[in-house]
Amino acid sequence: MHDSEALAHEVIARCQTLARFSEDSGSIRRTFLSPPMRDCHREIAGWLAPLGATSRVDAVGNLRIVYPAAEVEGPVSRLLIGSHLDTVPNAGPYDGVLGVVLAVALLSACNGRKLPFAIEVIGFSEEEGIRFGTPFIGSRALIGRLDEELLNREDAQGISIRQAIEKFGLNSADIAHAAVQNDALGYVEFHIEQGPVLESVGRPLGVVEAIAGQSRLEFTFEGHANHAGTTPMKLRHDALAAAAEWISAVERRAQDTPGLVGTVGAIQAKPGAVNVIAAETLVSLDVRHQNDETRNTAVSYFIRQADDISRRRALRVRSNVLMDQRAVPMDPFLVSQVEQAVASAGCVPYRMMSGAGHDAMILAEKVRSAMIFLRTPGGISHDPSESVEVGDVAKAIECGSCLLEQLASSTEFPRKTQHA
Amino acid sequence: MHDSEALAHEVIARCQTLARFSEDSGSIRRTFLSPPMRDCHREIAGWLAPLGATSRVDAVGNLRIVYPAAEVEGPVSRLLIGSHLDTVPNAGPYDGVLGVVLAVALLSACNGRKLPFAIEVIGFSEEEGIRFGTPFIGSRALIGRLDEELLNREDAQGISIRQAIEKFGLNSADIAHAAVQNDALGYVEFHIEQGPVLESVGRPLGVVEAIAGQSRLEFTFEGHANHAGTTPMKLRHDALAAAAEWISAVERRAQDTPGLVGTVGAIQAKPGAVNVIAAETLVSLDVRHQNDETRNTAVSYFIRQADDISRRRALRVRSNVLMDQRAVPMDPFLVSQVEQAVASAGCVPYRMMSGAGHDAMILAEKVRSAMIFLRTPGGISHDPSESVEVGDVAKAIECGSCLLEQLASSTEFPRKTQHA
Repeated sequence: MHDSEALAHEVIARCQTLARFSEDSGSIRRTFLSPPMRDCHREIAGWLAPLGATSRVDAVGNLRIVYPAAEVEGPVSRLLIGSHLDTVPNAGPYDGVLGVVLAVALLSACNGRKLPFAIEVIGFSEEEGIRFGTPFIGSRALIGRLDEELLNREDAQGISIRQAIEKFGLNSADIAHAAVQNDALGYVEFHIEQGPVLESVGRPLGVVEAIAGQSRLEFTFEGHANHAGTTPMKLRHDALAAAAEWISAVERRAQDTPGLVGTVGAIQAKPGAVNVIAAETLVSLDVRHQNDETRNTAVSYFIRQADDISRRRALRVRSNVLMDQRAVPMDPFLVSQVEQAVASAGCVPYRMMSGAGHDAMILAEKVRSAMIFLRTPGGISHDPSESVEVGDVAKAIECGSCLLEQLASSTEFPRKTQHA
Repeated sequence: MHDSEALAHEVIARCQTLARFSEDSGSIRRTFLSPPMRDCHREIAGWLAPLGATSRVDAVGNLRIVYPAAEVEGPVSRLLIGSHLDTVPNAGPYDGVLGVVLAVALLSACNGRKLPFAIEVIGFSEEEGIRFGTPFIGSRALIGRLDEELLNREDAQGISIRQAIEKFGLNSADIAHAAVQNDALGYVEFHIEQGPVLESVGRPLGVVEAIAGQSRLEFTFEGHANHAGTTPMKLRHDALAAAAEWISAVERRAQDTPGLVGTVGAIQAKPGAVNVIAAETLVSLDVRHQNDETRNTAVSYFIRQADDISRRRALRVRSNVLMDQRAVPMDPFLVSQVEQAVASAGCVPYRMMSGAGHDAMILAEKVRSAMIFLRTPGGISHDPSESVEVGDVAKAIECGSCLLEQLASSTEFPRKTQHA
């Protein structure tokens, strides 16, 4: 207990050290293959070298450090533990980074002891999608999902992903070698929750059951622009009033459906003048749930509600599906192992969904995957005031150590090959 | 009846003639003291010259044409009839212009007969407020309400009102001479309704009882920006959802209060991203009613609703009153005379309020004023498709002729001085 507390302080200090490697002066911004990424690689590799780990940077810039297995009979397999090292602009110090630094701490906590499987610490080069508008470039390389079209995408300066790779001193011809092989047993990712749930239920750690499926739509309500002074209420076809009624309907349904979130975050009323009734109102819709059927039923309801409201008001409405991404369940065996490890660390396990996407969502296609969330004070993330409690980090370290113990002694896990 | 129909055709043709005098090629735009205003003055004066009328352009560019009175004992007084000649950009041919051309037609309909009072046809130079962002420059000059501060206001090119007057060849030192004198008996204005009410009740003409008072406010709902995926519904402080609930409350209250209109025409949600819960939402509010107490009670209710909704959602809200303009009643004697004239023209009188401001609202401060609305197909105005029915214009001419007859034979009216 005392050890994990000391290690937790070190983890937080190390996250703050990495926070100094930034493209921007005075705030954290570290995008795909930016120069400060090199500093992170050097720093993290330096922490692990005394433990006998060997590090490399793969062809898309993922940091990959292998801590060897104990000498066992038969072929050696490996457990992947990591998260991402890139950040949004004006970021906090923990989003992504904490998961990598915690992985390093788990190896330190081994005190030189080797497990029946190797451990590969991965610091993904790209998760946020800032530089190329495309998230998960790092983890996609691990599952062999970086095709030509993707590699030719350009950033704001007209530099393609492929060119960025070469400019960083890497060889894009080696991308195929970044992919995981049959020896990968599973992937475990620690990440801050970036939401208020664990705080609201008073739990330091969350066991992620699934990463929510997500729908994005846009709706356009079409009414008539009329004079705000000369048009009586009953003769109006107000596109903004219609949209407002619909926004309330979305909110009510989401509140009434356990686990569902429905958000209207963007709105535009045209012509948008104080004294003109809105002729047109555009709104965005973001819907997420860990069960795809629940999500799809809700989306159908929202479209039907828009139709009903518009018909009653003699307006028209158009809707357009921009994204329809299935939920990704975490591996049931690993989820139960994580749950047990959380309990062993003295916490009451709390199963939850992840409303945001993570590298584990990508890895899950090829490797059995699991995620552990850390309580995020105020739910604040993507902001310099993002924080973690040292006690929660200590619990994460204890949970991680217990998990490694469990997996090492599992008669089942180290023998099993991955499910893809 | 046959005569008025022919005159109505001429009125419409003349409005279309004036529509050709525009600052823009292919659409109507005629702002304060723009070159095409001179063409309008010349054209209209030309129509009236054969009737023995004398025309001038006053110091703020109002066209003022006097049709002399019959020779009567005592001092000669005058009845003012008119509307405005300026337009919004991409205007229709009737807004304002129709009232001036109808006044000309009423003189033609006199067939050379003189009345016990003179008639001054006025074509106001500025009502819309396009060039200087300040409406009613023309009518304000008639009531002596053009002060130094106003005259120094500048247009987008940095030209002040005073400079614009000089550039047009007028003398700003003569502005005081534009003001109405004690001989003004009253002001009558025909105008298209610019709304759908007369059409919806199937009446060609409306008797304006009052010009609505108007409140303009802006509200800022302040919540918290959180992640749309990771923040459960019950832990949100969504500024857009709060604003939507409030918009519906505004609509409901306005629908439930006879004669009240409440409009939210502008909305802005920040940060305005699909996947971020709105931290802040700004909305405009426009409230109008012919009774100031009803309007003020409604505004208080809307502020209280915003407070209640925000408190329940643990948000904050600020509101700011940008305009609080009292209702302007039309002169009761003239209103009853207009009502009688409408009936004499074979129409069922329909009393209504004007939701929009008009020159009559300004004149009413000094001169007893009345307005007659003409049905506006589709309620469409400030648009090239703005129109009037020839039959409705004929009814307006008959109504105007009856009104002149009534006033001419009234034992009361021509003797009465104005109420200021």
